[in-house]
Amino acid sequence: MPTVLLTIAYDGTNYSGWQTQPNGLAVQQVVEEALKQLLGEEVQLRSSGRTDAGVHARAMPAAFSTNRTLPLQAYINGVNRFLPVDIAVQSARFVADGFKPITAAYAKQYRYTILNSTIRSPLDRLYRWQVRETLDLEVMKQAAAYFHGTHDFAAFRASNCVARTTIRRIDSVNISQEESTICIDVIGGGFLKYMVRVMAGTLVEIGRGRFQPEHVSWLLQHPDRKMAGVTAPACGLCLIEVFYPELTLR
Amino acid sequence: MPTVLLTIAYDGTNYSGWQTQPNGLAVQQVVEEALKQLLGEEVQLRSSGRTDAGVHARAMPAAFSTNRTLPLQAYINGVNRFLPVDIAVQSARFVADGFKPITAAYAKQYRYTILNSTIRSPLDRLYRWQVRETLDLEVMKQAAAYFHGTHDFAAFRASNCVARTTIRRIDSVNISQEESTICIDVIGGGFLKYMVRVMAGTLVEIGRGRFQPEHVSWLLQHPDRKMAGVTAPACGLCLIEVFYPELTLR
Repeated sequence: MPTVLLTIAYDGTNYSGWQTQPNGLAVQQVVEEALKQLLGEEVQLRSSGRTDAGVHARAMPAAFSTNRTLPLQAYINGVNRFLPVDIAVQSARFVADGFKPITAAYAKQYRYTILNSTIRSPLDRLYRWQVRETLDLEVMKQAAAYFHGTHDFAAFRASNCVARTTIRRIDSVNISQEESTICIDVIGGGFLKYMVRVMAGTLVEIGRGRFQPEHVSWLLQHPDRKMAGVTAPACGLCLIEVFYPELTLR
Repeated sequence: MPTVLLTIAYDGTNYSGWQTQPNGLAVQQVVEEALKQLLGEEVQLRSSGRTDAGVHARAMPAAFSTNRTLPLQAYINGVNRFLPVDIAVQSARFVADGFKPITAAYAKQYRYTILNSTIRSPLDRLYRWQVRETLDLEVMKQAAAYFHGTHDFAAFRASNCVARTTIRRIDSVNISQEESTICIDVIGGGFLKYMVRVMAGTLVEIGRGRFQPEHVSWLLQHPDRKMAGVTAPACGLCLIEVFYPELTLR
């Protein structure tokens, strides 16, 4: 039974997140419905994890097993014909049977994007968090360096996060600026609920001078969510890529 | 009576264009309504020209005269409070009384943006024309060079365009590519109705091999709209900037 790994881009603005849930429309169920229309059979998608309501993705991986073998191109163009304009399959490949995107992933890249301006930007409004106070990029970069490595991120998660362990590995946090747009690119082994958004919110508080850069180091020693920054809004966050070892694919 | 020059950014997706007209909601009337709420008096905006339904702008200039003198910042933040999320004033300055943005402008820059891919991009869908056939950028650049200078652009306009003269000056047409995004940046003295969109549509026909680059030269000699390319969709077009001589401003 062939297993196909799709990567899916979506504008999360109008969805309750990736994962199917009782309330609201999830991206996952829309894609499963499109696959059903193409394949004539019910399939269940296994992704690399969820994204929150309103968060975007350039390449969410999602695998499924099917009795119908089609040329790979059909899993892209065929599925896209049944998807709304704000969701589209970007790539498809055959992978080993039973491939699990969540356990096979060795790293994920998220990008948090800020509009640092007193003035709204209508053309970017769906994909930026507008921060009006001028941010000091240098102290934000100093602060970001403390995230590197394996730490307890208990201070950087949603209050209702139910993960069994709060230890996570961060490979890099890269902050860049072009005109009034600031990008925070985070690569890590895995993320707690709201983790990137609390990291971004904390870095912004540091950039506006409310905390010192060393506060990140302190937060990684003290698992107190209330001492970290705000949870940055969902619209600024985008899942850029999930990385897999070459060998798992075929 | 102070005259204020605003620049206004808007996402044109939900508007019938810049200029107020009998049918549909225009950006101009929404901004005039916001100014009325801020100033308590009716004002009439004079812009540098119209944009078609669905076309975007980063900086549409619009001037008005008012009896109420406010600090410049109030014309930005004050107006923006009364504007919807897809329209925002970006800058404001005082200009000479009777300043006319349309006659004072010496050049305008438009950008036409293409997604050159067989696969849809949900996160850019409102701001790109998707062209599936692979485009040959080199022949498009050769073709674009023919536009430079002052020519008769009668072949490059809407069939219902009523301009008295079809002679226009083009200062530059610059084509660039980053991954699957192609930008056509056009700077010129003024534009006929649909002119940039027919230029973009013709360049795309050349890039996909339907016309030779020299066809642009031929079209500039032969005012036959039917021999030019398609009118590229409105969503890919954005007014980037309108240029004024420093001296006119104060």
